Amino acid sequence: MKCALHSGGCSTCENRKHTEWRDLDGESLQLLEDRMITHLYAPGEVIYHQGDEAAGIYCIKSGLVGERHVNADGNSLLVRLDHPGSTLGYQEFLTRQEHHHTAEVMQTTEACFIDRATIARLLEKNPSIGNRFLQHSLKDTREMEDAYVASATLDVQTRLLHVLLVLCERYGRRNKDGTYTLEIPVAKKDLAELVGTAPESISRTIRKLNKGQLVHINGPTARFPSLAAVYSEISL
Amino acid sequence: MKCALHSGGCSTCENRKHTEWRDLDGESLQLLEDRMITHLYAPGEVIYHQGDEAAGIYCIKSGLVGERHVNADGNSLLVRLDHPGSTLGYQEFLTRQEHHHTAEVMQTTEACFIDRATIARLLEKNPSIGNRFLQHSLKDTREMEDAYVASATLDVQTRLLHVLLVLCERYGRRNKDGTYTLEIPVAKKDLAELVGTAPESISRTIRKLNKGQLVHINGPTARFPSLAAVYSEISL
Repeated sequence: MKCALHSGGCSTCENRKHTEWRDLDGESLQLLEDRMITHLYAPGEVIYHQGDEAAGIYCIKSGLVGERHVNADGNSLLVRLDHPGSTLGYQEFLTRQEHHHTAEVMQTTEACFIDRATIARLLEKNPSIGNRFLQHSLKDTREMEDAYVASATLDVQTRLLHVLLVLCERYGRRNKDGTYTLEIPVAKKDLAELVGTAPESISRTIRKLNKGQLVHINGPTARFPSLAAVYSEISL
Repeated sequence: MKCALHSGGCSTCENRKHTEWRDLDGESLQLLEDRMITHLYAPGEVIYHQGDEAAGIYCIKSGLVGERHVNADGNSLLVRLDHPGSTLGYQEFLTRQEHHHTAEVMQTTEACFIDRATIARLLEKNPSIGNRFLQHSLKDTREMEDAYVASATLDVQTRLLHVLLVLCERYGRRNKDGTYTLEIPVAKKDLAELVGTAPESISRTIRKLNKGQLVHINGPTARFPSLAAVYSEISL
Protein backbone atom coordinates (compact mmCIF):
# COMPACT_ATOMS: atom_id res chain seq x y z
CA MET A 1 0.00 0.00 0.00
CA LYS A 2 1.46 3.32 -1.08
CA CYS A 3 -0.33 6.62 -1.35
CA ALA A 4 0.86 10.14 -2.02
CA LEU A 5 -0.05 12.47 0.83
CA HIS A 6 -1.01 16.09 1.02
CA SER A 7 1.76 17.01 3.38
CA GLY A 8 2.79 20.24 5.03
CA GLY A 9 5.87 20.27 2.81
CA CYS A 10 9.56 20.74 3.52
CA SER A 11 9.38 24.40 4.56
CA THR A 12 7.25 23.53 7.60
CA CYS A 13 8.72 20.07 8.29
CA GLU A 14 9.95 19.86 11.89
CA ASN A 15 12.43 17.14 10.96
CA ARG A 16 14.25 19.12 8.29
CA LYS A 17 16.57 20.69 10.87
CA HIS A 18 17.99 17.20 11.47
CA THR A 19 18.60 16.50 7.77
CA GLU A 20 21.11 17.53 5.13
CA TRP A 21 18.53 20.04 3.84
CA ARG A 22 18.54 22.16 7.00
CA ASP A 23 20.26 25.24 5.51
CA LEU A 24 18.66 25.47 2.06
CA ASP A 25 17.97 28.93 0.63
CA GLY A 26 14.40 29.80 -0.35
CA GLU A 27 14.77 28.83 -4.01
CA SER A 28 16.32 25.45 -3.21
CA LEU A 29 13.71 24.79 -0.56
CA GLN A 30 10.99 25.48 -3.11
CA LEU A 31 12.67 23.07 -5.57
CA LEU A 32 12.82 20.39 -2.86
CA GLU A 33 9.20 20.93 -1.97
CA ASP A 34 8.08 20.84 -5.62
CA ARG A 35 9.90 17.60 -6.41
CA MET A 36 9.60 15.69 -3.14
CA ILE A 37 7.01 12.88 -3.10
CA THR A 38 5.59 11.65 0.20
CA HIS A 39 4.34 8.10 0.69
CA LEU A 40 2.71 6.36 3.61
CA TYR A 41 3.97 2.83 4.31
CA ALA A 42 2.32 0.21 6.50
CA PRO A 43 4.34 -2.01 8.89
CA GLY A 44 6.02 -4.84 6.98
CA GLU A 45 6.14 -2.90 3.70
CA VAL A 46 9.46 -2.43 1.98
CA ILE A 47 10.67 0.98 0.78
CA TYR A 48 13.46 -0.56 -1.33
CA HIS A 49 15.15 -3.96 -1.54
CA GLN A 50 18.81 -4.86 -1.18
CA GLY A 51 20.16 -4.99 -4.74
CA ASP A 52 17.72 -2.38 -6.12
CA GLU A 53 19.16 0.53 -8.05
CA ALA A 54 19.34 3.66 -5.84
CA ALA A 55 17.02 6.14 -7.52
CA GLY A 56 17.25 8.83 -4.85
CA ILE A 57 17.13 9.56 -1.13
CA TYR A 58 14.30 9.11 1.39
CA CYS A 59 13.68 11.34 4.41
CA ILE A 60 11.77 9.76 7.27
CA LYS A 61 9.01 12.13 8.36
CA SER A 62 7.38 9.84 10.90
CA GLY A 63 7.52 6.18 11.90
CA LEU A 64 10.31 3.64 12.14
CA VAL A 65 12.33 1.88 9.43
CA GLY A 66 14.88 -0.94 9.77
CA GLU A 67 17.79 -1.40 7.36
CA ARG A 68 18.26 -5.13 6.92
CA HIS A 69 21.30 -6.72 5.26
CA VAL A 70 21.28 -10.31 4.06
CA ASN A 71 24.69 -11.85 3.44
CA ALA A 72 25.71 -14.52 0.91
CA ASP A 73 24.80 -17.30 3.35
CA GLY A 74 21.29 -15.92 3.80
CA ASN A 75 21.92 -14.66 7.34
CA SER A 76 20.21 -11.36 7.94
CA LEU A 77 20.93 -8.54 10.34
CA LEU A 78 19.28 -5.22 11.15
CA VAL A 79 22.19 -2.87 10.56
CA ARG A 80 20.42 0.22 11.88
CA LEU A 81 17.04 1.72 12.69
CA ASP A 82 15.96 4.97 11.08
CA HIS A 83 13.80 7.41 13.00
CA PRO A 84 12.07 10.65 11.96
CA GLY A 85 14.70 13.06 10.65
CA SER A 86 16.87 10.23 9.23
CA THR A 87 18.05 10.31 5.61
CA LEU A 88 17.90 6.89 4.01
CA GLY A 89 19.90 5.58 1.05
CA TYR A 90 22.29 8.50 0.79
CA GLN A 91 25.37 6.24 0.77
CA GLU A 92 24.21 4.36 -2.31
CA PHE A 93 23.14 7.58 -4.00
CA LEU A 94 26.61 9.11 -3.47
CA THR A 95 28.59 6.00 -4.42
CA ARG A 96 26.23 5.14 -7.31
CA GLN A 97 25.95 1.59 -5.98
CA GLU A 98 22.86 -0.54 -5.66
CA HIS A 99 21.10 -0.62 -2.28
CA HIS A 100 23.11 -2.55 0.29
CA HIS A 101 20.05 -3.09 2.52
CA THR A 102 16.36 -3.69 2.44
CA ALA A 103 14.54 -0.77 4.08
CA GLU A 104 11.64 -2.39 5.93
CA VAL A 105 8.91 -0.46 7.69
CA MET A 106 8.66 -1.42 11.39
CA GLN A 107 5.94 1.08 12.33
CA THR A 108 3.63 3.08 10.04
CA THR A 109 6.01 5.44 8.25
CA GLU A 110 5.70 8.61 6.23
CA ALA A 111 8.77 8.89 3.97
CA CYS A 112 9.61 11.63 1.47
CA PHE A 113 11.43 10.62 -1.71
CA ILE A 114 13.81 12.99 -3.51
CA ASP A 115 14.97 11.89 -6.95
CA ARG A 116 18.57 11.80 -8.18
CA ALA A 117 18.27 14.80 -10.56
CA THR A 118 16.81 17.03 -7.83
CA ILE A 119 19.56 16.11 -5.36
CA ALA A 120 22.20 16.82 -8.01
CA ARG A 121 20.70 20.30 -8.55
CA LEU A 122 20.52 20.96 -4.80
CA LEU A 123 24.15 19.87 -4.35
CA GLU A 124 25.25 22.12 -7.19
CA LYS A 125 23.53 25.17 -5.70
CA ASN A 126 24.42 24.34 -2.06
CA PRO A 127 27.93 22.86 -1.81
CA SER A 128 27.57 22.77 1.99
CA ILE A 129 25.17 19.81 1.59
CA GLY A 130 28.25 17.74 0.67
CA ASN A 131 29.73 18.53 4.06
CA ARG A 132 26.45 17.52 5.75
CA PHE A 133 26.62 14.14 4.02
CA LEU A 134 30.27 13.84 5.05
CA GLN A 135 29.36 14.43 8.72
CA HIS A 136 26.46 11.96 8.42
CA SER A 137 28.78 9.34 6.93
CA LEU A 138 31.44 9.88 9.62
CA LYS A 139 28.76 9.38 12.28
CA ASP A 140 27.54 6.21 10.54
CA THR A 141 31.10 4.86 10.37
CA ARG A 142 31.62 5.45 14.08
CA GLU A 143 28.29 3.80 14.95
CA MET A 144 29.01 0.76 12.78
CA GLU A 145 32.46 0.49 14.32
CA ASP A 146 30.99 0.59 17.82
CA ALA A 147 28.44 -2.08 16.82
CA TYR A 148 31.25 -4.22 15.39
CA VAL A 149 33.42 -3.90 18.50
CA ALA A 150 30.40 -4.67 20.71
CA SER A 151 29.46 -7.69 18.58
CA ALA A 152 32.98 -9.11 18.78
CA THR A 153 33.73 -8.37 22.43
CA LEU A 154 30.50 -8.22 24.45
CA ASP A 155 28.12 -11.03 25.39
CA VAL A 156 24.51 -11.17 24.20
CA GLN A 157 23.10 -9.95 27.54
CA THR A 158 25.21 -6.78 27.51
CA ARG A 159 24.38 -6.10 23.86
CA LEU A 160 20.64 -6.65 24.47
CA LEU A 161 20.70 -4.27 27.45
CA HIS A 162 22.50 -1.72 25.29
CA VAL A 163 19.90 -1.96 22.50
CA LEU A 164 17.05 -1.71 25.04
CA LEU A 165 18.61 1.40 26.59
CA VAL A 166 18.95 3.07 23.18
CA LEU A 167 15.29 2.24 22.42
CA CYS A 168 14.23 3.43 25.90
CA GLU A 169 15.89 6.81 25.31
CA ARG A 170 13.56 7.33 22.34
CA TYR A 171 10.45 5.30 23.13
CA GLY A 172 10.51 4.78 26.89
CA ARG A 173 8.38 6.63 29.43
CA ARG A 174 9.29 7.56 32.97
CA ASN A 175 6.76 6.37 35.54
CA LYS A 176 5.83 8.31 38.68
CA ASP A 177 7.91 6.00 40.85
CA GLY A 178 11.07 6.69 38.82
CA THR A 179 10.99 3.35 36.98
CA TYR A 180 10.85 3.26 33.18
CA THR A 181 8.57 1.37 30.80
CA LEU A 182 9.43 0.67 27.17
CA GLU A 183 7.07 -0.74 24.56
CA ILE A 184 9.70 -2.41 22.37
CA PRO A 185 8.87 -1.07 18.88
CA VAL A 186 10.13 -4.10 16.94
CA ALA A 187 9.25 -7.82 16.91
CA LYS A 188 11.40 -10.27 18.89
CA LYS A 189 12.98 -11.62 15.68
CA ASP A 190 14.00 -8.07 14.75
CA LEU A 191 15.27 -7.42 18.27
CA ALA A 192 17.57 -10.44 17.78
CA GLU A 193 18.75 -9.05 14.44
CA LEU A 194 19.46 -5.68 16.09
CA VAL A 195 21.50 -7.36 18.82
CA GLY A 196 23.23 -9.51 16.20
CA THR A 197 22.21 -12.93 17.45
CA ALA A 198 19.64 -15.70 16.94
CA PRO A 199 16.03 -15.39 18.25
CA GLU A 200 16.59 -18.46 20.53
CA SER A 201 19.55 -16.69 22.10
CA ILE A 202 17.43 -13.57 22.75
CA SER A 203 14.66 -15.67 24.35
CA ARG A 204 17.22 -17.41 26.58
CA THR A 205 18.80 -14.08 27.56
CA ILE A 206 15.38 -12.56 28.36
CA ARG A 207 14.57 -15.50 30.64
CA LYS A 208 17.90 -15.01 32.40
CA LEU A 209 17.40 -11.24 32.74
CA ASN A 210 13.87 -11.74 34.13
CA LYS A 211 15.39 -13.63 37.09
CA GLY A 212 17.45 -10.54 38.00
CA GLN A 213 16.71 -6.93 38.90
CA LEU A 214 17.92 -4.99 35.85
CA VAL A 215 14.90 -5.35 33.57
CA HIS A 216 11.70 -7.37 33.37
CA ILE A 217 10.51 -8.18 29.88
CA ASN A 218 6.99 -9.45 29.30
CA GLY A 219 5.96 -9.72 25.65
CA PRO A 220 6.74 -6.37 24.01
CA THR A 221 6.94 -4.52 27.35
CA ALA A 222 10.20 -3.91 29.19
CA ARG A 223 10.23 -2.43 32.69
CA PHE A 224 13.42 -0.97 34.18
CA PRO A 225 13.38 -0.59 38.01
CA SER A 226 16.48 1.65 37.68
CA LEU A 227 18.01 2.91 34.43
CA ALA A 228 21.12 3.95 36.37
CA ALA A 229 21.66 0.32 37.41
CA VAL A 230 21.53 -0.77 33.76
CA TYR A 231 23.95 1.97 32.65
CA SER A 232 26.27 0.91 35.44
CA GLU A 233 25.99 -2.80 34.49
CA ILE A 234 27.03 -2.19 30.89
CA SER A 235 29.81 0.26 31.83
CA LEU A 236 28.34 3.30 30.05
CA MET B 1 62.17 5.91 17.92
CA LYS B 2 61.14 8.67 15.59
CA CYS B 3 63.29 10.39 13.01
CA ALA B 4 62.54 12.88 10.29
CA LEU B 5 63.51 11.52 6.87
CA HIS B 6 64.84 13.10 3.74
CA SER B 7 62.03 11.86 1.57
CA GLY B 8 61.24 12.24 -2.12
CA GLY B 9 58.31 14.45 -1.15
CA CYS B 10 54.65 14.49 -2.14
CA SER B 11 55.17 15.46 -5.79
CA THR B 12 57.00 12.21 -6.51
CA CYS B 13 55.13 9.98 -4.01
CA GLU B 14 53.65 6.97 -5.78
CA ASN B 15 50.98 6.59 -3.10
CA ARG B 16 49.55 10.10 -3.51
CA LYS B 17 47.25 8.95 -6.33
CA HIS B 18 45.44 6.79 -3.75
CA THR B 19 44.98 9.65 -1.26
CA GLU B 20 42.75 12.67 -0.90
CA TRP B 21 45.65 14.79 -2.24
CA ARG B 22 45.67 13.20 -5.68
CA ASP B 23 44.38 16.22 -7.63
CA LEU B 24 46.20 19.11 -5.94
CA ASP B 25 47.30 22.04 -8.10
CA GLY B 26 51.02 22.95 -8.13
CA GLU B 27 50.78 25.60 -5.43
CA SER B 28 48.84 23.35 -3.04
CA LEU B 29 51.19 20.47 -3.70
CA GLN B 30 54.12 22.73 -2.82
CA LEU B 31 52.36 23.76 0.42
CA LEU B 32 51.74 20.10 1.29
CA GLU B 33 55.36 19.23 0.57
CA ASP B 34 56.68 22.18 2.61
CA ARG B 35 54.59 21.38 5.69
CA MET B 36 54.48 17.58 5.62
CA ILE B 37 56.77 15.84 8.14
CA THR B 38 57.86 12.24 7.55
CA HIS B 39 58.70 9.88 10.40
CA LEU B 40 59.95 6.32 10.45
CA TYR B 41 58.31 4.05 13.04
CA ALA B 42 59.54 0.67 14.23
CA PRO B 43 57.15 -2.29 14.75
CA GLY B 44 55.31 -1.93 18.07
CA GLU B 45 55.59 1.86 18.11
CA VAL B 46 52.44 3.92 18.42
CA ILE B 47 51.67 6.82 16.06
CA TYR B 48 48.86 8.10 18.31
CA HIS B 49 46.84 6.72 21.21
CA GLN B 50 43.09 6.33 21.59
CA GLY B 51 41.96 9.45 23.47
CA ASP B 52 44.74 11.69 22.09
CA GLU B 53 43.73 14.99 20.54
CA ALA B 54 43.72 14.73 16.73
CA ALA B 55 46.40 17.18 15.62
CA GLY B 56 46.28 16.33 11.93
CA ILE B 57 46.26 13.52 9.38
CA TYR B 58 48.86 10.84 8.62
CA CYS B 59 49.53 9.36 5.16
CA ILE B 60 51.10 5.90 5.15
CA LYS B 61 54.02 5.91 2.71
CA SER B 62 55.24 2.39 3.43
CA GLY B 63 54.67 -0.31 6.04
CA LEU B 64 51.62 -1.53 7.91
CA VAL B 65 49.59 0.09 10.70
CA GLY B 66 46.76 -1.39 12.77
CA GLU B 67 43.95 0.74 14.25
CA ARG B 68 43.12 -0.74 17.65
CA HIS B 69 40.05 0.18 19.69
CA VAL B 70 39.76 -0.65 23.38
CA ASN B 71 36.24 -0.56 24.83
CA ALA B 72 35.10 0.33 28.35
CA ASP B 73 35.58 -3.28 29.50
CA GLY B 74 39.20 -3.32 28.31
CA ASN B 75 38.48 -5.61 25.35
CA SER B 76 40.49 -4.61 22.32
CA LEU B 77 39.92 -5.15 18.62
CA LEU B 78 41.85 -4.30 15.47
CA VAL B 79 39.24 -2.30 13.61
CA ARG B 80 41.25 -2.02 10.38
CA LEU B 81 44.70 -2.30 8.86
CA ASP B 82 46.21 0.64 7.00
CA HIS B 83 48.48 0.02 4.04
CA PRO B 84 50.61 2.39 1.92
CA GLY B 85 48.31 5.02 0.40
CA SER B 86 45.96 5.02 3.42
CA THR B 87 45.01 8.26 5.17
CA LEU B 88 44.91 7.85 8.92
CA GLY B 89 42.98 9.90 11.47
CA TYR B 90 40.90 11.88 8.98
CA GLN B 91 37.61 11.05 10.75
CA GLU B 92 38.76 12.59 14.02
CA PHE B 93 40.24 15.57 12.20
CA LEU B 94 36.93 16.26 10.44
CA THR B 95 34.69 15.69 13.47
CA ARG B 96 37.12 17.47 15.84
CA GLN B 97 36.94 14.49 18.19
CA GLU B 98 39.78 12.79 20.00
CA HIS B 99 41.33 9.69 18.42
CA HIS B 100 38.97 6.72 18.62
CA HIS B 101 41.83 4.22 18.08
CA THR B 102 45.43 3.59 18.85
CA ALA B 103 47.44 3.51 15.62
CA GLU B 104 50.04 0.81 16.21
CA VAL B 105 52.85 0.00 13.80
CA MET B 106 52.78 -3.67 12.70
CA GLN B 107 55.67 -3.46 10.25
CA THR B 108 58.32 -0.73 9.86
CA THR B 109 56.31 2.24 8.64
CA GLU B 110 57.07 5.56 7.01
CA ALA B 111 54.19 7.96 7.77
CA CYS B 112 53.79 11.58 6.69
CA PHE B 113 52.06 13.97 9.10
CA ILE B 114 50.06 16.96 7.88
CA ASP B 115 48.99 19.44 10.55
CA ARG B 116 45.48 20.83 11.05
CA ALA B 117 46.24 24.35 9.75
CA THR B 118 47.74 23.01 6.51
CA ILE B 119 44.78 20.72 5.85
CA ALA B 120 42.39 23.63 6.47
CA ARG B 121 44.28 25.73 3.88
CA LEU B 122 44.30 22.85 1.37
CA LEU B 123 40.54 22.29 1.85
CA GLU B 124 39.85 25.98 1.34
CA LYS B 125 41.79 26.08 -1.92
CA ASN B 126 40.58 22.65 -3.17
CA PRO B 127 36.94 22.04 -2.22
CA SER B 128 37.06 18.72 -4.10
CA ILE B 129 39.16 17.29 -1.24
CA GLY B 130 35.95 17.33 0.83
CA ASN B 131 34.35 14.99 -1.69
CA ARG B 132 37.41 12.70 -1.52
CA PHE B 133 36.99 12.46 2.25
CA LEU B 134 33.28 11.78 1.77
CA GLN B 135 34.02 8.87 -0.59
CA HIS B 136 36.65 7.57 1.85
CA SER B 137 34.19 7.73 4.71
CA LEU B 138 31.44 5.99 2.71
CA LYS B 139 33.90 3.19 1.90
CA ASP B 140 34.88 2.93 5.58
CA THR B 141 31.22 2.74 6.62
CA ARG B 142 30.55 -0.07 4.16
CA GLU B 143 33.62 -2.00 5.30
CA MET B 144 32.72 -1.63 8.99
CA GLU B 145 29.18 -2.72 8.22
CA ASP B 146 30.44 -5.81 6.39
CA ALA B 147 32.75 -6.60 9.34
CA TYR B 148 29.82 -6.18 11.74
CA VAL B 149 27.52 -8.44 9.73
CA ALA B 150 30.31 -11.03 9.41
CA SER B 151 31.05 -10.86 13.13
CA ALA B 152 27.40 -11.41 14.04
CA THR B 153 26.51 -14.05 11.47
CA LEU B 154 29.63 -16.03 10.48
CA ASP B 155 31.64 -18.52 12.51
CA VAL B 156 35.29 -17.94 13.46
CA GLN B 157 36.62 -20.30 10.76
CA THR B 158 34.84 -18.44 7.96
CA ARG B 159 35.95 -15.06 9.32
CA LEU B 160 39.57 -16.25 9.68
CA LEU B 161 39.56 -17.56 6.10
CA HIS B 162 38.17 -14.23 4.95
CA VAL B 163 40.89 -12.24 6.75
CA LEU B 164 43.59 -14.58 5.37
CA LEU B 165 42.26 -14.14 1.82
CA VAL B 166 42.30 -10.34 2.15
CA LEU B 167 45.89 -10.50 3.45
CA CYS B 168 46.84 -12.96 0.69
CA GLU B 169 45.58 -10.56 -1.98
CA ARG B 170 48.12 -8.00 -0.76
CA TYR B 171 50.97 -10.04 0.75
CA GLY B 172 50.61 -13.52 -0.76
CA ARG B 173 52.77 -14.95 -3.57
CA ARG B 174 51.73 -17.41 -6.24
CA ASN B 175 53.97 -20.46 -6.43
CA LYS B 176 54.91 -22.23 -9.66
CA ASP B 177 52.46 -25.05 -8.93
CA GLY B 178 49.52 -22.64 -8.63
CA THR B 179 49.39 -22.80 -4.83
CA TYR B 180 49.74 -19.59 -2.77
CA THR B 181 51.96 -18.79 0.20
CA LEU B 182 51.26 -15.97 2.64
CA GLU B 183 53.61 -14.72 5.33
CA ILE B 184 50.98 -13.43 7.76
CA PRO B 185 52.15 -9.85 8.47
CA VAL B 186 50.71 -9.62 12.01
CA ALA B 187 51.22 -11.59 15.23
CA LYS B 188 48.71 -14.31 16.18
CA LYS B 189 47.21 -12.11 18.91
CA ASP B 190 46.60 -9.38 16.32
CA LEU B 191 45.19 -11.91 13.86
CA ALA B 192 42.64 -12.81 16.56
CA GLU B 193 41.79 -9.13 17.05
CA LEU B 194 41.34 -8.73 13.28
CA VAL B 195 38.97 -11.71 13.17
CA GLY B 196 37.20 -10.41 16.28
CA THR B 197 37.80 -13.32 18.59
CA ALA B 198 40.10 -14.58 21.35
CA PRO B 199 43.63 -15.91 20.62
CA GLU B 200 42.63 -19.36 22.01
CA SER B 201 39.77 -19.49 19.53
CA ILE B 202 42.15 -18.67 16.64
CA SER B 203 44.59 -21.39 17.76
CA ARG B 204 41.75 -23.91 17.95
CA THR B 205 40.46 -22.88 14.52
CA ILE B 206 43.95 -23.13 12.98
CA ARG B 207 44.34 -26.67 14.37
CA LYS B 208 40.98 -27.58 12.84
CA LEU B 209 41.82 -26.00 9.47
CA ASN B 210 45.19 -27.79 9.38
CA LYS B 211 43.33 -31.13 9.37
CA GLY B 212 41.54 -30.13 6.15
CA GLN B 213 42.59 -29.10 2.64
CA LEU B 214 41.75 -25.39 2.50
CA VAL B 215 44.85 -23.93 4.15
CA HIS B 216 47.83 -25.13 6.15
CA ILE B 217 49.14 -22.69 8.73
CA ASN B 218 52.54 -23.22 10.30
CA GLY B 219 53.76 -20.35 12.49
CA PRO B 220 53.42 -17.16 10.43
CA THR B 221 53.21 -19.03 7.10
CA ALA B 222 49.91 -19.94 5.46
CA ARG B 223 49.81 -22.17 2.36
CA PHE B 224 46.72 -22.37 0.17
CA PRO B 225 46.57 -25.43 -2.13
CA SER B 226 43.74 -23.70 -4.04
CA LEU B 227 42.53 -20.12 -3.51
CA ALA B 228 39.43 -20.93 -5.57
CA ALA B 229 38.47 -23.62 -3.05
CA VAL B 230 38.70 -21.07 -0.21
CA TYR B 231 36.65 -18.49 -2.10
CA SER B 232 34.06 -21.16 -2.77
CA GLU B 233 34.04 -22.29 0.88
CA ILE B 234 33.29 -18.80 2.18
CA SER B 235 30.72 -18.05 -0.56
CA LEU B 236 32.59 -15.13 -2.13
